[in-house]
Amino acid sequence: MRPSKKEKSSKKENAATRKVIAGLGISLDGYIARLDGSVDFLFMPKDYSMGPFFKTIDTAILGRKTYDDGLKMGGSFTGSIKYYVFSKTHPPGERNHVTFTNESPSAVIVEIRKKPGKNIWLMGGGILIRDFLKEDLVDELYLGVVPTLIGEGIPLFPSGFPQREFDLVENKTYSRGLITLKYERVRKKNKKAH
Amino acid sequence: MRPSKKEKSSKKENAATRKVIAGLGISLDGYIARLDGSVDFLFMPKDYSMGPFFKTIDTAILGRKTYDDGLKMGGSFTGSIKYYVFSKTHPPGERNHVTFTNESPSAVIVEIRKKPGKNIWLMGGGILIRDFLKEDLVDELYLGVVPTLIGEGIPLFPSGFPQREFDLVENKTYSRGLITLKYERVRKKNKKAH
Repeated sequence: MRPSKKEKSSKKENAATRKVIAGLGISLDGYIARLDGSVDFLFMPKDYSMGPFFKTIDTAILGRKTYDDGLKMGGSFTGSIKYYVFSKTHPPGERNHVTFTNESPSAVIVEIRKKPGKNIWLMGGGILIRDFLKEDLVDELYLGVVPTLIGEGIPLFPSGFPQREFDLVENKTYSRGLITLKYERVRKKNKKAH
Repeated sequence: MRPSKKEKSSKKENAATRKVIAGLGISLDGYIARLDGSVDFLFMPKDYSMGPFFKTIDTAILGRKTYDDGLKMGGSFTGSIKYYVFSKTHPPGERNHVTFTNESPSAVIVEIRKKPGKNIWLMGGGILIRDFLKEDLVDELYLGVVPTLIGEGIPLFPSGFPQREFDLVENKTYSRGLITLKYERVRKKNKKAH
């Protein structure tokens, strides 16, 4: 089936508007993992599914440490998602479905957005999210908050980036006390333009 | 009017069950104030009121720095609420409606609970909240979260206390993107007892 005119134009627009979404599960005290990288405190209640979110993305971006932790925990970086790993130690280039890069977040996002596609999932860790916030590249936050204070760990938002305003667009409560929050970045320039 | 039998018995129970509620407004990245103590990023939307919360408390507890910041910002510690300020520098004792203390959080809470009354508002700052979490004295969290990442500040939950589980009991959305979250401490011993 050939795309309709409307679909064509939305695909064209899409290349510029592929959103960067920082999507993570966190403890109530704002940690994405314990100090050793483990995430045993996170859980997925039966009435919640990440399926709808996964349908909106086709690219995932992560830091080298988060990538290593993922492999250590038995995760695989294959399937239909294209992965980019920011690393100063791995030689740049594509290997085993993963593109390693030592370029700036802005450069990588510009490159990804040259092609049409779905949204871009910023998986973490905190340091990479801070780099993205510094360059004001985070368009959306999608957080799942569990009702546990873990006391210490790797923060989602390590300090050291400029103030960023967001709009709350979704706040949902699931069983076992999980809440999901969706926030969209408010950029004043964009507000005036539209 | 004399209290009914039911009211009498609930008052008696109350002395033991006066809850400690850490109630604060925070930025989306978990700060209660900027590094200089200012809280300009917090706001109170028209459809939200702290009135119902204030009706449930008659005692407030705060750290010396939070007390000083409150005075600096033109706040007053008078009215019907009884204030306790934890300080290692101020001489202990009651002055100007405020009781200064250098005792442990547990000792102060035991003392307060000897008399019947309403709940106890733990106002902060983060260091005092951590001390209360260390001694497992926080019965409830009542948080207002604004949709702004401020990038750096004074954290609500500075690291360095044991893991604490909570139940989510309330999640509400107000205008301008404020959400309020109420969590109750889950203590396994208590769970078995009831």
